[in-house]
Amino acid sequence: MEAPVTTLARRALATTALALVAASDASAQNAQRDPLPSWRDGPTKRAIFALIRQSVRLGTPDFIPPAERVAVFDNDGTLWVEQPIYTQLSFALDRLRTMAQQDPSLAERQPFKAAIEGDMRAVMAGGEHALAEIVAVTHSGMSQEVFAGMVTQWMSTARHPRFQRPYSQLFYEPMLEVMRLLRREGFAVWIVTGGGQEFVRAFGMATYDVPLDRVVGSVGKTEFRILPDGKSELYRLPAIDAVDDGPGKPIGIGRFIGRRPTIAFGNSDGDIEMLQYTTTSPGRRLGLFVRHDDAVREYAYDRDTHIGKLDRGLTLAPQAGWKLISMKDDWLRIFAG
Amino acid sequence: MEAPVTTLARRALATTALALVAASDASAQNAQRDPLPSWRDGPTKRAIFALIRQSVRLGTPDFIPPAERVAVFDNDGTLWVEQPIYTQLSFALDRLRTMAQQDPSLAERQPFKAAIEGDMRAVMAGGEHALAEIVAVTHSGMSQEVFAGMVTQWMSTARHPRFQRPYSQLFYEPMLEVMRLLRREGFAVWIVTGGGQEFVRAFGMATYDVPLDRVVGSVGKTEFRILPDGKSELYRLPAIDAVDDGPGKPIGIGRFIGRRPTIAFGNSDGDIEMLQYTTTSPGRRLGLFVRHDDAVREYAYDRDTHIGKLDRGLTLAPQAGWKLISMKDDWLRIFAG
Repeated sequence: MEAPVTTLARRALATTALALVAASDASAQNAQRDPLPSWRDGPTKRAIFALIRQSVRLGTPDFIPPAERVAVFDNDGTLWVEQPIYTQLSFALDRLRTMAQQDPSLAERQPFKAAIEGDMRAVMAGGEHALAEIVAVTHSGMSQEVFAGMVTQWMSTARHPRFQRPYSQLFYEPMLEVMRLLRREGFAVWIVTGGGQEFVRAFGMATYDVPLDRVVGSVGKTEFRILPDGKSELYRLPAIDAVDDGPGKPIGIGRFIGRRPTIAFGNSDGDIEMLQYTTTSPGRRLGLFVRHDDAVREYAYDRDTHIGKLDRGLTLAPQAGWKLISMKDDWLRIFAG
Repeated sequence: MEAPVTTLARRALATTALALVAASDASAQNAQRDPLPSWRDGPTKRAIFALIRQSVRLGTPDFIPPAERVAVFDNDGTLWVEQPIYTQLSFALDRLRTMAQQDPSLAERQPFKAAIEGDMRAVMAGGEHALAEIVAVTHSGMSQEVFAGMVTQWMSTARHPRFQRPYSQLFYEPMLEVMRLLRREGFAVWIVTGGGQEFVRAFGMATYDVPLDRVVGSVGKTEFRILPDGKSELYRLPAIDAVDDGPGKPIGIGRFIGRRPTIAFGNSDGDIEMLQYTTTSPGRRLGLFVRHDDAVREYAYDRDTHIGKLDRGLTLAPQAGWKLISMKDDWLRIFAG
């Protein structure tokens, strides 16, 4: 697959990075050399280092050839803030308001009326069906390119209600460090999100260095169209094709990656099956949950929340050997800058 | 996305390969330097060289950054022999016979009875439905890993009825050369096949250097299962999830690649939409059909065939600017060895 020179360069890089890991592990004080400077020294950080070290060390039983090193990351709540509502839902609500300006009849029908008025309690009372309707209306009726442009535009102007910062500044720096480290060690780094694939693609490269073809997400149906001017497009229809959540995550991994992950990061019950698929596979694997236990710097929630609920996952974790990443204790800082 | 050293190495490689292309173009006689030695010098070969040269030359209007260079290849009839029946159908028929030995009742029901007796005319009379039933029965009821093992095993023993060689020797060497050249020039090389994704994945790396995550194909539904022993699997169900043919090809490209291809190779009407999606996109693009016009060395067929029909595509090609690759005239040899 790779040209030999590239392979050699990658191998050299891997060796260098490995040395860095070893060094940082031995003297975690030396922040300059630590590939995970935002992580406090402790069992979680060490477990991540150990998995990487053993996966890339030639000649050991746990060695994994570079082509088979796969790391998967959930997005909402694992890589960025998901409270008080999913960012994509924020986008949908803003777009709904814009649409209602052009078509006021929209604001007279439920669940759109409640959503436009900001009455999320009423929307939530409509359950998943109401949310799905809002997403269908706001996410369809345009080409993939036009949709991506809308997301990029929105991301550049929208602000998080509590932090009053653009969403692009609300990524967890410690997780970006892990992604960088894994990539440097030859892992293919994938996002496997319950969110919309095209929504996440619109900022995945700029923020995570994750290219378009490494974003697995929920997808709507599209239609291939030849336009009157001879150009073509993939037109977004108001219908769901696949929900990449719960058991949909290992199914999506099978379909897009075709390989069992070596390491998986999630934060909610929707990630349980992804962690199961990872850690029940042969060989050395690691599954981790980000634990939102820091109300001061971010949010604290687990079993009792509508967004990012971690309940059954918490119960299963000890026996499954999944690690819990405490935002409060494991992360020296949460956001960059 | 890439570590800097790797990027540099790749850039250096691209420059070298580019020089090779330029050299070979200037003196096509010098077979040692020609990256497409199995291609006769002529307009088709020159069109491929021209597209690559203009895509990778920094500072020109047609320059495409490496991350955006995408090449897509249909599989059956474009990369290997598809006559007298698709290889995957051959696999299905062999597997059906094996299954009937264990469950003789299978051989008493149609369309299985006709298929087991080798009466393909009767099977074909049942239309797509009969074929779909045969594929469903033979391709489901096991995990992805077990299925992949069956394909690998079959590929190592089965022989093509006319050539009496393993199917793995019936790839078109000129096309493998194009794939290698494109890869060397920084293109991501994808297979976009109407065949089964997992079927093609089972030999894609060994024969094409195309990794598992760059095979877009038709997929069946799978179910994520935790087994009694604590292990897990993706279990293949007897139901189709997506058919990657016709308009399904641009839809699959959108979903897996997320980017419009720069160059697309097909050979049948099922590839029309993939070529349209490619060549109606902004910037310089190229679409090509492999033309089966060599009954002596391979097969000759186009408008009147059940397998790999090229009818509407032939009609559309001149106006769309798609190139026809003549197996007879453009290829000095068809198979390796």
